[in-house]
Amino acid sequence: MASFKVPTQDMKFVLTELFDAPALWNSIPHFEEVSEDLAMAILEEGAKLSENEVFPINRSGDEEGCTWDDGKVTTPSGFKEAFQTYAESGWTSLGGNPEFGGQGLPKMLTCFVEEMFYAANSSFALYPALTNGATLAIDAHGSQALKEQYLPKLYDGSWSASMCLTEAHSGTDLGLIRTKAEDQGDGTYLITGTKIFITGGEHDLTENIIHLVLAKLPGAPAGPKGISLFMVPKIKVDSDNNLGDGNNVSCGSIEHKMGLKGSSTCVMNFDGSEGYLVGEVNKGLAAMFTMMNYERLTVGLQGVGLSEVSYQSAREYAQDRLQSRAPTGAVAPEKMADPIIVHPDVRRMLLTQKAYAEGNRAFASFVAMKLDIAKHHPDSDQRNAAQNMVALLTPVAKAFFSDRGLDACILGQQVFGGHGYVREWGMEQMVRDARIAQIYEGTNGIQALDLMGRKVAANSGEWLYQYCDEMEQYIETCSQASEIPEFIQSLKDSIDVLKRTTEYVLSESASDVNVIGAASCDYLNLLGLVTLNYLWVRMAAVSSSKTDDHFYSSKVKTGQFFVQKLLPEIQGYAAKVRSGADSLMQFNDNEF
Amino acid sequence: MASFKVPTQDMKFVLTELFDAPALWNSIPHFEEVSEDLAMAILEEGAKLSENEVFPINRSGDEEGCTWDDGKVTTPSGFKEAFQTYAESGWTSLGGNPEFGGQGLPKMLTCFVEEMFYAANSSFALYPALTNGATLAIDAHGSQALKEQYLPKLYDGSWSASMCLTEAHSGTDLGLIRTKAEDQGDGTYLITGTKIFITGGEHDLTENIIHLVLAKLPGAPAGPKGISLFMVPKIKVDSDNNLGDGNNVSCGSIEHKMGLKGSSTCVMNFDGSEGYLVGEVNKGLAAMFTMMNYERLTVGLQGVGLSEVSYQSAREYAQDRLQSRAPTGAVAPEKMADPIIVHPDVRRMLLTQKAYAEGNRAFASFVAMKLDIAKHHPDSDQRNAAQNMVALLTPVAKAFFSDRGLDACILGQQVFGGHGYVREWGMEQMVRDARIAQIYEGTNGIQALDLMGRKVAANSGEWLYQYCDEMEQYIETCSQASEIPEFIQSLKDSIDVLKRTTEYVLSESASDVNVIGAASCDYLNLLGLVTLNYLWVRMAAVSSSKTDDHFYSSKVKTGQFFVQKLLPEIQGYAAKVRSGADSLMQFNDNEF
Repeated sequence: MASFKVPTQDMKFVLTELFDAPALWNSIPHFEEVSEDLAMAILEEGAKLSENEVFPINRSGDEEGCTWDDGKVTTPSGFKEAFQTYAESGWTSLGGNPEFGGQGLPKMLTCFVEEMFYAANSSFALYPALTNGATLAIDAHGSQALKEQYLPKLYDGSWSASMCLTEAHSGTDLGLIRTKAEDQGDGTYLITGTKIFITGGEHDLTENIIHLVLAKLPGAPAGPKGISLFMVPKIKVDSDNNLGDGNNVSCGSIEHKMGLKGSSTCVMNFDGSEGYLVGEVNKGLAAMFTMMNYERLTVGLQGVGLSEVSYQSAREYAQDRLQSRAPTGAVAPEKMADPIIVHPDVRRMLLTQKAYAEGNRAFASFVAMKLDIAKHHPDSDQRNAAQNMVALLTPVAKAFFSDRGLDACILGQQVFGGHGYVREWGMEQMVRDARIAQIYEGTNGIQALDLMGRKVAANSGEWLYQYCDEMEQYIETCSQASEIPEFIQSLKDSIDVLKRTTEYVLSESASDVNVIGAASCDYLNLLGLVTLNYLWVRMAAVSSSKTDDHFYSSKVKTGQFFVQKLLPEIQGYAAKVRSGADSLMQFNDNEF
Repeated sequence: MASFKVPTQDMKFVLTELFDAPALWNSIPHFEEVSEDLAMAILEEGAKLSENEVFPINRSGDEEGCTWDDGKVTTPSGFKEAFQTYAESGWTSLGGNPEFGGQGLPKMLTCFVEEMFYAANSSFALYPALTNGATLAIDAHGSQALKEQYLPKLYDGSWSASMCLTEAHSGTDLGLIRTKAEDQGDGTYLITGTKIFITGGEHDLTENIIHLVLAKLPGAPAGPKGISLFMVPKIKVDSDNNLGDGNNVSCGSIEHKMGLKGSSTCVMNFDGSEGYLVGEVNKGLAAMFTMMNYERLTVGLQGVGLSEVSYQSAREYAQDRLQSRAPTGAVAPEKMADPIIVHPDVRRMLLTQKAYAEGNRAFASFVAMKLDIAKHHPDSDQRNAAQNMVALLTPVAKAFFSDRGLDACILGQQVFGGHGYVREWGMEQMVRDARIAQIYEGTNGIQALDLMGRKVAANSGEWLYQYCDEMEQYIETCSQASEIPEFIQSLKDSIDVLKRTTEYVLSESASDVNVIGAASCDYLNLLGLVTLNYLWVRMAAVSSSKTDDHFYSSKVKTGQFFVQKLLPEIQGYAAKVRSGADSLMQFNDNEF
């Protein structure tokens, strides 16, 4: 069966030993009250709640699913009670703006809380995740009045929120949306249209739901430049936040999906629903994008969390399941067979999961650190440099974590053999739940295009080379370099591959713009693996002097596994990029 | 929505233009009645049945699933009627021994029939697939009396069969089975034990089910050398095949699975059930293995079929779905957006599916050709040489087709964006259905170990080098070599990588047996890709002079896509193999 303990030791390692987050928090006034002790207490408390209350309703939630009846959506048994505990213990306000009742904690810390709840129960974790995203947008773009009225109720979990972007004919291409907004001249707008794929659009966890809706005002420019953002409550509220009448917002149906069955995915109908403008007219997409980097990292964390729970479950099974003997002779001769963990190929599967779970956890924290610096560091140069890294690495984190997260869950399922395919064992649910993270919040193809086009080609590789500088500076200053020479060499080599591949794209795309799209997916994988290489080298470096403790010796060995058994994939990705676009574009319509 | 047409043109291309099967059939007396016309008529008729009767009950079968009630299993609506049509039209006897009512058709042809039914409805296709496997074992090892009595009823579809190997504690390691057989001294045995994961162990499609059961006689040697094979009918039959009493065979429950929901996966209880020995005492595993190569190729074909249907469905969606504009400017300015097939990354996904579906189809036919030669060719040298190739390539086919089949289905789902995650669109079912093929009939890890250990290392690479010789001879004699120089060079290079990697494993495994297991999965992928390279070169060669027809120009272009965008992965696989076993084996128990 699936089993799960939050890897708090590893989270602490990343925060304190890898990145020295406490020192960073000390240097940023916004975080001056955050200490290592506080951080660890939060992780420990989160572990209790996620392991004891939220993980136990994961399998049952998948079997039961959400149900829709005449517009009402009921979440699976136990979700409502668990959400109440979650909200009452303050988990809905961790990252919120303290001015309006949030706790103002750094993303470096909250990202681990997100990871653990995704691991325990991805369907459950999505409800607060969407609210988080919406509060970021409201906090960044809403009027002071809107913020004062709505944020406290969203932070304390009395209300939740949804993000209403997609329409049936308009997903990736939001410029095509048809939902209309009509200015009533009194500060309110009437919103009319139908949105699909709305996560948490309707449910029974909170007394009200605040929808952030993209819509077009009459006469707005065509395409993405004519989109505005509105806040539309499910139930109207007065100035004291008393609930009033319904707001003509209705849930037409919920989707029956591959996984995430405890999370409601709704068709939402707005029929002259009263809403409020968030941000400026026709700047709705930009307003959504300000919180997109947080949301994309969050979606990536789903992949990290599911890698972790799948790894832990598969490890336990591989240690217990007796089949055949080790290639070098029986290791448990008193038993009918050896545990399957003795077999090299089973180890390959487990260690691949481990290397991705731990590596991507460090990667997520690395991006979160840049997010925290970009938003709150007192020095503007530091903020700007960090913002470039956030822009560059966020699409990688979202797509790479979710891609490798699916791979990891498939491997964990494989370790279970036939039992992995049977629902009650829980391993196949992880695969089904992990699959969505590659699709929502911008498909991974879109992430790759964003990376290759907007984040690399558009600035002639400036941010990418800035990132390479950071890695090369690390190599120069790494005091443990002499202890881990093979790690340092692997990083030098892979940075070289990354630079040469980047140069190819920059040079070839000048004459053939299709080279960007043709390279995008492979380039994203390349950058993801080089980043993991960088972080595994750093983890090995800080662990290399402490290998008398198995936690640290395991870190060094997992880093070696990564370099020898996963990193070599960069050769293939680089060669694919360098083959250009012709082999894709030469097909005529009738040749598919 | 999912859509499916059997790719009969491509099947014909593989049979006639790529491999000249009619000439081969002419040279083998067993197949002398098989002609190109007959083969095409069979494919056309199979296409009608699979497209019109079997594909339409695929989605509904997934939603409805099999149901168990007090030992009775009911298949989804329509399955019984479709199976009746299937059997009555002769599809259950295609490959059977003509001496007992089979049609004796070559595997090269029947493998395409298997593929099309897996594509249309994998759950449905499994029922006759298991019967096929059982009839091969009975035909090869059963007594004349058993064959005369049972094979005709299995060939005509009145009865079906199951293969009862796995027990709860004994899957990969069949030596551990506990099911007992007791010799009654009258030619019958009483079988007692519980088997799990029995596909088609119970259902409502046929009036009787013949179970092939692995069991141990009292005093049999421990481990795999003490296993015997028995034939146990669900309902006893008299010598005229009239059904009599029940045989104490009962279905205890069915599994609730990730996919394949229309296929019953049964717990089967045998409680002193009367059975007959098949083959010799204690040679049961060997008897099962004689038909294993056929079965493993069959399971691989599930991956090929699902790649095909996923590709066709994704292609149609990508041609219809309008989002955004092509990077080089609008191609459909009269529409609100361009079809997404204009985007390089969408093409990458579609062409990856296409290259695997068509490439693995050719690969399957190639192995099937070797199977036909190994079994029926009049020349014993040819038979032996072909048998070596069958032994070498079958584990690759099973694992590579199912691995890339899953990848292809995931890509097809990805092309659909959010709709890919919603059940009604049908794309996510393909992923769930494809996933099992990596697990059953020997997990892909076991296939890789079989390849690397028994098929390569155990004979010091003799068969592998024999295969390289075949490929190199092709290069020398390829009359189109000058027309397709880059293809020929890619094949030379990849054979070189394959040989050097093989030499590494042979040399290193002499001192460290763990190198075999550590290399196995990566080596299998390497050999799979090199084989596809070989077959794509051959397909490009026979198509290169006919590129005025879009079918042939597409073949050449798809081959180019394969060489440029998929083949480069071999560098990573080779490097991983050459890193040895240390990075896997150095972990202590507490370091996982």
